Amino acid sequence: MKNIYLERLDVMLREGIDNEEELHRICEMLHPAVLGLRLSELEPEDAKAILDRFLPENQAIVLSHFRKEKAGELAELYMDEMLADIIELMPHDDRVDLIKQIPEERREKLLMKIEEADREDIMRLSLYEEETAGAVMTSEFVTLRETMTVEEALVSIRRVAKDRETIYNAYVVDAYNRLTGIVTLRELLLYSGGTKMADIMNTDVVFAREDEDQEVVANRLSEYDLIAMPVIDDHNKMVGIVTFDDVMDVRKEEATEDFHKMGSVGLMNISLSDAPVKTLILKRMPWLLVLVFMNIFSGAGIAYFEDTIEAVVALVFFLPLLIDSGGNAGSQASTLMVRALATGDVKIRDWFRLFSKEIFVAITIGVIMGVAVSLVGFFRSGPEVAFVVALTMVCCVTVGSLLGMSMPFLLQKFNFDPATASAPLITSLADIAGVLMYFSIATWYFNL
Amino acid sequence: MKNIYLERLDVMLREGIDNEEELHRICEMLHPAVLGLRLSELEPEDAKAILDRFLPENQAIVLSHFRKEKAGELAELYMDEMLADIIELMPHDDRVDLIKQIPEERREKLLMKIEEADREDIMRLSLYEEETAGAVMTSEFVTLRETMTVEEALVSIRRVAKDRETIYNAYVVDAYNRLTGIVTLRELLLYSGGTKMADIMNTDVVFAREDEDQEVVANRLSEYDLIAMPVIDDHNKMVGIVTFDDVMDVRKEEATEDFHKMGSVGLMNISLSDAPVKTLILKRMPWLLVLVFMNIFSGAGIAYFEDTIEAVVALVFFLPLLIDSGGNAGSQASTLMVRALATGDVKIRDWFRLFSKEIFVAITIGVIMGVAVSLVGFFRSGPEVAFVVALTMVCCVTVGSLLGMSMPFLLQKFNFDPATASAPLITSLADIAGVLMYFSIATWYFNL
Repeated sequence: MKNIYLERLDVMLREGIDNEEELHRICEMLHPAVLGLRLSELEPEDAKAILDRFLPENQAIVLSHFRKEKAGELAELYMDEMLADIIELMPHDDRVDLIKQIPEERREKLLMKIEEADREDIMRLSLYEEETAGAVMTSEFVTLRETMTVEEALVSIRRVAKDRETIYNAYVVDAYNRLTGIVTLRELLLYSGGTKMADIMNTDVVFAREDEDQEVVANRLSEYDLIAMPVIDDHNKMVGIVTFDDVMDVRKEEATEDFHKMGSVGLMNISLSDAPVKTLILKRMPWLLVLVFMNIFSGAGIAYFEDTIEAVVALVFFLPLLIDSGGNAGSQASTLMVRALATGDVKIRDWFRLFSKEIFVAITIGVIMGVAVSLVGFFRSGPEVAFVVALTMVCCVTVGSLLGMSMPFLLQKFNFDPATASAPLITSLADIAGVLMYFSIATWYFNL
Repeated sequence: MKNIYLERLDVMLREGIDNEEELHRICEMLHPAVLGLRLSELEPEDAKAILDRFLPENQAIVLSHFRKEKAGELAELYMDEMLADIIELMPHDDRVDLIKQIPEERREKLLMKIEEADREDIMRLSLYEEETAGAVMTSEFVTLRETMTVEEALVSIRRVAKDRETIYNAYVVDAYNRLTGIVTLRELLLYSGGTKMADIMNTDVVFAREDEDQEVVANRLSEYDLIAMPVIDDHNKMVGIVTFDDVMDVRKEEATEDFHKMGSVGLMNISLSDAPVKTLILKRMPWLLVLVFMNIFSGAGIAYFEDTIEAVVALVFFLPLLIDSGGNAGSQASTLMVRALATGDVKIRDWFRLFSKEIFVAITIGVIMGVAVSLVGFFRSGPEVAFVVALTMVCCVTVGSLLGMSMPFLLQKFNFDPATASAPLITSLADIAGVLMYFSIATWYFNL
């Protein structure tokens, strides 16, 4: 899909802005999300030079679509007064993200320049712990009263429509701001003007608690196909809403986190494309070092069986094949479980049932692979090596698979992230087990 | 979050339905998504016994929330007439998914019992290739004309509100049904009754082509924070809309697919929890066998250098550690790239820039790890082995990383899925390279 306005903007950015009027027209036609993402690819100075041409409210909406870290860099270039004005005009959830990017000493000073109501809202929202419903929600939602009629509700919604994140879901609250029901705009259009909210609202509301984990909240919103979900505090008071677009971002972020963990890469809060070399090294080194020292155990296992190896050197040929098969089967099993636990497809209580199924799956796979490699073993080194290799294969695949499928459950059980059971970690553990099993079986079989 | 209605339903399902009236009340209070997911966990016969108590329109909406394969099993239990009635009442995208689950001979017969307009709609939607925008879209959207006033538009929306997937975005089309603009319900509420659509519609519409890949379409909708996105054909005619909830499902599905591929598991169209043993074995065996036969090359490499090993047996101790480090660094690099390519964070044209960065990252990591293991080598087997091990480590990590980061690009370039560059595949390739490098360096250094 081509976007002619974006193409024209690119030309202007490359060749210099020769026509102010055209630039304004282009930026007006472009979706703020596109403009924000495009400008956040520029150097902050260049982005600011463009943004300076617009009214504060337009700057605010474009800035809300910047990549987080880039918005922080850009903010440094603004004078306090102007930045305070823009922050007042930004969506309430995005401006908290921006404020968090600003160095502490400036933040204090800046907050003093922001209007009191906005300042309090910012402070309240920034108190929530990262990755909770409170931290992703926005405070711009529509509330109604039970006694309101459809006609009154529509008037009330029209009045605030401009600065609410969504007006398609409205929340009915009592005098203490406690959530009692929900009404969709669709319903308001379908009922006659005099109907009371109390008669049409849905009281079985799907909601989130403010301190709930963002991933759980995201899965719930998606399960119910909701545009927005209300967030309530301990007293059932309405404190915010989480909208579908925030949820899409959360799910993308969480999936990326799990991917990186599965590849034994540390958490990165920056896109791969922008990540500096230093970050990449720091995020990749720790696990590699842990794994190296785990591999020393495999090496020690091999060294321990040096006599066996010297007696039957042919065994070394099958070493990589056997231990890797255990690691690969284990990676498969852990990948399946990590993903199923993350999407809620599988719960901790399912472990025993899945473990029983896995035993059956793993032994079957092990036997088939054992037969396959014993043929190679037979033609290369005779029936005895073939037998040892086949038996080891069954053991390696079974142990690797059971280890791979159980580890994510164990981690979750003790409140660690199941995705820590990465493919490389499982492979290294399976390697150690594989070396020990292979040479133990060989030593026993050849009476060494 | 507890749901008292769901809990009560669970008790009834367990202990028998003693109160018909209560069952009806519970099912009315439950969100159809929850009821659908819960019933699809039951045996089809039991689910049908519950569903039979409701009106066809209620059965239709609950059935639309069933897991796909379960909906198919359930459909087998219905008589043709009743099933046809229900299908007519289902959301247009979900009913196509259901129809595809029904065996071909029955499908023909069933379609003849469905009203003509619905039948044609089903046939049209089911023609789209899987995983395209056309295959996920629904045909229930709201269209307006440029000449309509806000008042007329609202009347028109109210009339169809009940059976449209979303009414919050309306699409302005010309006499040939070609898309000319978009109006949100929010805008309709903000403008005065006499304003014409032509004056308020946004003409820079973000759309999808009917044959575009679903993942690309999903990323676009999410980037623009849209509730729905119009889908057009080659003549720019409006053929459907893709809604945010479909996009969430698509993205979840695509992320799961990528996870499984990264763990070298084949595509599964069924949840892990429901997957029968046979499916699991069939999805896991092929890659394990491919990887085993790749490992034979590592084994052959070791066998080729048997003389070197016999001369300096101490080298075997470091074998797992060195070749695994190459594999692990490669898994990290491929994981980062596969995810970044999937989310659109990185494009094929970025390969060269990222390759240059990777060389630097990989050599730095390699040197640090080389120094770390050379200490182990020094204390275990003296300075000569330490030098060989350190040098091999730098080579293994660098080659592994560059292989891991390049492979996803190469696959994408030739229209394969980049996620095929799974951790186990990269590990196996890095193993072969590692064995050859290690013993070549040793043979050269010790003049063997």
